[in-house]
Amino acid sequence: MKCPSDILALDATDPLSDKRKEFSLPHNTIYLDGNSLGPLPNTVNQALTDVVQQQWGNDLISSWNKHGWIDLATRVGEKIAPLIGAAPGQVVSCDSISINLFKLLASALQLNPQRRVVLSQQDNFPTDLYMVQGLASLLGSERCELVSVYAEDLVASLDESVAVLLLTHVNFRNGERHDMQALTKLAHDKGILVIWDLAHSAGAMPLELDEHQVDFAVGCGYKYLNGGPGSPAFLYVAERHQRAVDQPLKGWMGHRSPFDFSADYAGASGVSQFLAGTPNILSLVALDAALDVFANVDMQQIRDKSIALADLFIKQLKQSSCADEFKILSPLEHQHRGSQVALQHPSAYAITQALIAQNVIVDFRAPNVVRFGLTPLYTRYQDIWQSIQVLSEIMRNKRHLAPAYQVRNKVT
Amino acid sequence: MKCPSDILALDATDPLSDKRKEFSLPHNTIYLDGNSLGPLPNTVNQALTDVVQQQWGNDLISSWNKHGWIDLATRVGEKIAPLIGAAPGQVVSCDSISINLFKLLASALQLNPQRRVVLSQQDNFPTDLYMVQGLASLLGSERCELVSVYAEDLVASLDESVAVLLLTHVNFRNGERHDMQALTKLAHDKGILVIWDLAHSAGAMPLELDEHQVDFAVGCGYKYLNGGPGSPAFLYVAERHQRAVDQPLKGWMGHRSPFDFSADYAGASGVSQFLAGTPNILSLVALDAALDVFANVDMQQIRDKSIALADLFIKQLKQSSCADEFKILSPLEHQHRGSQVALQHPSAYAITQALIAQNVIVDFRAPNVVRFGLTPLYTRYQDIWQSIQVLSEIMRNKRHLAPAYQVRNKVT
Repeated sequence: MKCPSDILALDATDPLSDKRKEFSLPHNTIYLDGNSLGPLPNTVNQALTDVVQQQWGNDLISSWNKHGWIDLATRVGEKIAPLIGAAPGQVVSCDSISINLFKLLASALQLNPQRRVVLSQQDNFPTDLYMVQGLASLLGSERCELVSVYAEDLVASLDESVAVLLLTHVNFRNGERHDMQALTKLAHDKGILVIWDLAHSAGAMPLELDEHQVDFAVGCGYKYLNGGPGSPAFLYVAERHQRAVDQPLKGWMGHRSPFDFSADYAGASGVSQFLAGTPNILSLVALDAALDVFANVDMQQIRDKSIALADLFIKQLKQSSCADEFKILSPLEHQHRGSQVALQHPSAYAITQALIAQNVIVDFRAPNVVRFGLTPLYTRYQDIWQSIQVLSEIMRNKRHLAPAYQVRNKVT
Repeated sequence: MKCPSDILALDATDPLSDKRKEFSLPHNTIYLDGNSLGPLPNTVNQALTDVVQQQWGNDLISSWNKHGWIDLATRVGEKIAPLIGAAPGQVVSCDSISINLFKLLASALQLNPQRRVVLSQQDNFPTDLYMVQGLASLLGSERCELVSVYAEDLVASLDESVAVLLLTHVNFRNGERHDMQALTKLAHDKGILVIWDLAHSAGAMPLELDEHQVDFAVGCGYKYLNGGPGSPAFLYVAERHQRAVDQPLKGWMGHRSPFDFSADYAGASGVSQFLAGTPNILSLVALDAALDVFANVDMQQIRDKSIALADLFIKQLKQSSCADEFKILSPLEHQHRGSQVALQHPSAYAITQALIAQNVIVDFRAPNVVRFGLTPLYTRYQDIWQSIQVLSEIMRNKRHLAPAYQVRNKVT
């Protein structure tokens, strides 16, 4: 069946349509998993060749100065800053979300020394909860305790016992989006500091960390920022907190003068005190190049298209023959939704495998969710239409019941 | 002046001479800084092209299974294990030395709960000291205290107050090598656990962590292992401790079933509980490929050549016209020396710059040290001879007094 002309017309008038050419995408594949691993931007090839052949291969150790490796974590942070509504001097790219959360959790608890509770959401991405559990195991429950509640109980749980509110802006499983501004305000009104995890929102929508008076944030380099598998994460520390904090992972790159090789730690002023070990140059170069894709992009255009893609997905699904088989887990209201549509089905794992076998790349999240990631830089309206065609054909012909699709892989 | 035939003969009969061809080295350059950043192994080019173009670019998210990304941190660890005398199941490659030290320090203190002192060396590499200071700032001095003493006072300081002995095997500045076996035994006799930092020894000499009953170790991917700038580090946890420890940086990759997305942390059995965030795949692939250089290498041959290179360096220096201008900081006895020769001079910085300007790449360590790194895989005896020729010519003609060489760069 051919894609209807009204849907092709949406692509023809899409102001972001040219962006797709800036990515290397596999042929005959619809990639709806950019919320797990963004595809390869064309800029990355040349940048990696250059850093390997010329910088590492030829200029070797001199590249720390000559090619600015020493400042790269900061420069990449400054490139991310405008995408998340942060003025300069508040973002660095380093380590992983997990490690960065540890730095920020310890810092936030230190700024709120009379309290010990870190409030989070039961269905937060697990590593966020685990890092609080790790800090609590180290500090003891008298100094740090994780309390995680269901999303609907969050507001009622914001009381004077809470030191830190740790939330992921957009939920990894169902794509539900918190109201960052309102929750930050409610938290502050109770003397609570906030840490937002932007893994599923940075690069997918406009963010206003400064304007919303956010205290701390972390985010992911390899999802909507397309920095490559396991790309360095980033962290944000509001300028007003930078003099007061004293983060515990005091590696030499956070020292104010690392090349003095002094025996005593003295943290750098500003956000670079949150650097720890030697920065991972190859991966930072890939992320740096990947971010060039965003140079001339209006984040509101990305958000508008993301909403339109999701609305089209939901409309097409509801009109399809398999409409009644799925429960749409993601909120239908735009303001409550991130940039994915999650469908619930008892055979979600097998359906995911059947879709992948037909080159519609989505992913499964336990126990029963198929995630369709919507990434406006390279996803077309016709891809959405086609995905629903494939999905309904699979369900109609019960292709997902094939034995090959029942066996769980290590990673899904 | 032409290199004497007896020195050329050393290269001609060097059993490692063919290894040099496995590296991409800049032309007309003598690279004596592999103890800071190892050069580019030829294997890395193809591996990085493949992981970027084919795995990331084409196979995208499926590469976690298809190309084994999910196990890569463990596989790279297992490739490092034989180089450090570790049986399988005790090494993973992840994060930085700084971050890994934090995991191990917290684990070691937990295994020795009646004590709080971490004993180290005043001239240890600063990040090692800083990470103890960071942990102490978090736990308070009643649970963690750094005591750092001069090398000559270490043995006398090993008493029943000490929980953990944290030492770098080969000192970054003067190249002095500790007796790992003897110090580990002395520490154990006093109920002290040991953490060895192998930054300047892994890949440079045979190591016997298992045989010497070492408890914990960390090491660097980008020096003698040639994994590229900011390459992931590695850590070793002796099998006998793996069930008892509970490291605090509990990221999702250390969970026993990360893809169950359970809200409660349950560490993996074995050393993989020391993983934290999503592994950095591009950098791990580079390190993995770089390690292939060691596949058929006898580490004792590397050590033998390292000693011979250093002895030649010292002999040539002593015979040169500038012999009296430098103090040799590195020990002259083989068993006390790592794989570098450090020279002390009041104008060390300027001399370093003058050497670099003449394509002899060495580095400066504050306040007054020029380091000559000796890396047997690609450094020739004739390079050593040539370096001393260049050094003595610089000193004879006072080239280091040129104003351009006096100005300190950010990194040196």
